[in-house]
Amino acid sequence: MTDEADLDQRHAEKMAKRKAARAKIIATKTIEKGLLIVHTGLGKGKSTAAFGLVMRCLGHGLKVGIIQFTKGAWTSGERAVIDRFPDLATIKVMGEGFTWETQDRQRDLAAARAAWAAAQEMMADPTLHLVLLDELNIVLRYDYLDVVDVVAGLQARRADLHVVATGRNAKPELIEAADLVTDMTLVKHPFRSGVKAQRGIEF
Amino acid sequence: MTDEADLDQRHAEKMAKRKAARAKIIATKTIEKGLLIVHTGLGKGKSTAAFGLVMRCLGHGLKVGIIQFTKGAWTSGERAVIDRFPDLATIKVMGEGFTWETQDRQRDLAAARAAWAAAQEMMADPTLHLVLLDELNIVLRYDYLDVVDVVAGLQARRADLHVVATGRNAKPELIEAADLVTDMTLVKHPFRSGVKAQRGIEF
Repeated sequence: MTDEADLDQRHAEKMAKRKAARAKIIATKTIEKGLLIVHTGLGKGKSTAAFGLVMRCLGHGLKVGIIQFTKGAWTSGERAVIDRFPDLATIKVMGEGFTWETQDRQRDLAAARAAWAAAQEMMADPTLHLVLLDELNIVLRYDYLDVVDVVAGLQARRADLHVVATGRNAKPELIEAADLVTDMTLVKHPFRSGVKAQRGIEF
Repeated sequence: MTDEADLDQRHAEKMAKRKAARAKIIATKTIEKGLLIVHTGLGKGKSTAAFGLVMRCLGHGLKVGIIQFTKGAWTSGERAVIDRFPDLATIKVMGEGFTWETQDRQRDLAAARAAWAAAQEMMADPTLHLVLLDELNIVLRYDYLDVVDVVAGLQARRADLHVVATGRNAKPELIEAADLVTDMTLVKHPFRSGVKAQRGIEF
């Protein structure tokens, strides 16, 4: 047998084993439940991946609700796409901007409370498949909402509703309550080398 | 002054300083260039965030090319959305499935080479704003393509073309060449607790 043919054969054997192992694992996964998903970390992709989840649901014809806790998080590119699904997607922009834009703690507090009320209303809508709480973590971080109340509210949702919460510095209480947590870890960022935010990438 | 009012005032001062600091930093960011973006790591969100970037471009009316190095990576949800933009998005599914599905190294090798040829052709298209090389890292990891050739091909693209490469285990050579690298780090995954893949979330 040539070296190349030997390599091919060993590859086939290894992959057959891997396939069998995977099938065995997958067979044990039988639970269906609404997940509490958290995207946190200092890297990029937290809101973008959540937006991707939203789009995936819309592609399946599933209804989605979105609360934006800060105005700045999403811009025209996302909105233009979401607006193609007026029957399936509802967006509520509740925050007025990042907290260093408003510089007004009382206004931020009121906006956060109104956003959480809207989120609870959305979570009570039995037709929704997924609710996205974009930049929830930022209002929790500034203690504009009480994390214990928020976690209790999330846990009180119906059993098959998926919720995604995004934002850096997720609180330990939220991570503890979540089913799926991904930390978008910054490895390398071009902003550090003088590259500015660009259309289609950052906004 | 009450405690609350004092807190508000200190908040306003702190945030005004933060806003000024941010404005100063942003003013130094003047370079526009096509970015080489890598989403890697063992966590979720690598392909989903890339899909989100694609959708953001489509929302802006910008053209996008997608090469899928493995068939399994995207499913009906994403496809249904992308298909709403037939004039802007081109998808080529080049791989036949994950390598443990085909179990055939020669077939995988041929598929990887054909996918890379298609990727190079796409990168030569001057009308595209972004090219997504989904699961490129998996074929590099199995050495189905030579990483030095691939990095050279990526670096030879035109200066304003954005490229996103996804997949776990990104090679150091690719990370070195990239402008923006995010490691989607697994913090918590429900698959480990017997929860199965669910519509709108995993597919």
